[in-house]
Amino acid sequence: MSGTTPSSRKVSRGRSRIGLIIGIDPGSKVTGYALVEGGNPSRPVCRLAGEIRPNPAWPLARRLAAVFDGLDRIIAENRPQEMAVEDVFFAKNARSALALGHVRGVALLAAARHGLEVSTYSANAIKKSVVGYGRASKDQVGQMVCSLLAIREVPGRDVTDALACALCHINTSGTARKIQAALDRNGPPGNGR
Amino acid sequence: MSGTTPSSRKVSRGRSRIGLIIGIDPGSKVTGYALVEGGNPSRPVCRLAGEIRPNPAWPLARRLAAVFDGLDRIIAENRPQEMAVEDVFFAKNARSALALGHVRGVALLAAARHGLEVSTYSANAIKKSVVGYGRASKDQVGQMVCSLLAIREVPGRDVTDALACALCHINTSGTARKIQAALDRNGPPGNGR
Repeated sequence: MSGTTPSSRKVSRGRSRIGLIIGIDPGSKVTGYALVEGGNPSRPVCRLAGEIRPNPAWPLARRLAAVFDGLDRIIAENRPQEMAVEDVFFAKNARSALALGHVRGVALLAAARHGLEVSTYSANAIKKSVVGYGRASKDQVGQMVCSLLAIREVPGRDVTDALACALCHINTSGTARKIQAALDRNGPPGNGR
Repeated sequence: MSGTTPSSRKVSRGRSRIGLIIGIDPGSKVTGYALVEGGNPSRPVCRLAGEIRPNPAWPLARRLAAVFDGLDRIIAENRPQEMAVEDVFFAKNARSALALGHVRGVALLAAARHGLEVSTYSANAIKKSVVGYGRASKDQVGQMVCSLLAIREVPGRDVTDALACALCHINTSGTARKIQAALDRNGPPGNGR
């Protein structure tokens, strides 16, 4: 697929907007996105997932505009509350990090435009959260994403990574909320109780 | 300075909009910009130059929005025809290339939003074009920029780099136009004439 229109896989399962997360896997050629409902962290639901694949013949600025416009529209139509994006610590070289940065920059701008809070996770943290093992293979991540979201067919790599990123955020937020609730109930550990 | 408002040095010298170039020096902390009139390449004129310095305490997405909004407003108000941006081949590491890429991405998006053609130049090409020597020092670039634009005081580094980038584009475009004119007049070299 090419052009400004994102290709989408609709996996609609309800209408609640509580805890809707948009996971993004920015790439210099393809940007994956996934809207995952995290209201019940033990039963996350994929609402929409797809990829934005601008025409590679276009100049860079136009390709970035296609990514921004695609994400802007998806966020406006679906109103997620938060964005989760993979963090990047390593890249093949400065050139590929720069190319990735361009797309990541416009994705973050789309989040800011809609007032979404952004959380970032390393690839290892995402794998650990989704598969339980920070050095899991792409196949393992794909299978676990399908299992957690009850999706039959493993999506493309960019969509899988966006789904995994959203799931990681939901898990992490869920754990953080549980810890906070326990602290509110019992006070901090070692306070004499 | 901090906040979304770009700090500007107005160096207005006329009202013509022919050949107005916006040069950009994107940086993870400060983004320099410069509007240079290149209608007469042998007498370039600086119309406006300044820097956008978002509050470093803001989250990344908000800082990127400040850079985008600043450039968007400057372009809308001044209507340059083209954008020139420094190209990056080397960076300290992938992390700094990524940070630079974020800002560069939103700058290119601002260009695309206003239909500006974007040209990119390596740091060496810019120095060679402005100073005549690809490994010129920052001081040499600053002095030559001031001399070429009849500016009395050397501006800050980011503004100087944005001015140098715009001047490089004007020189390069001027040379390209001269070559094209000569080709149109005389035909390609070695064609028997």
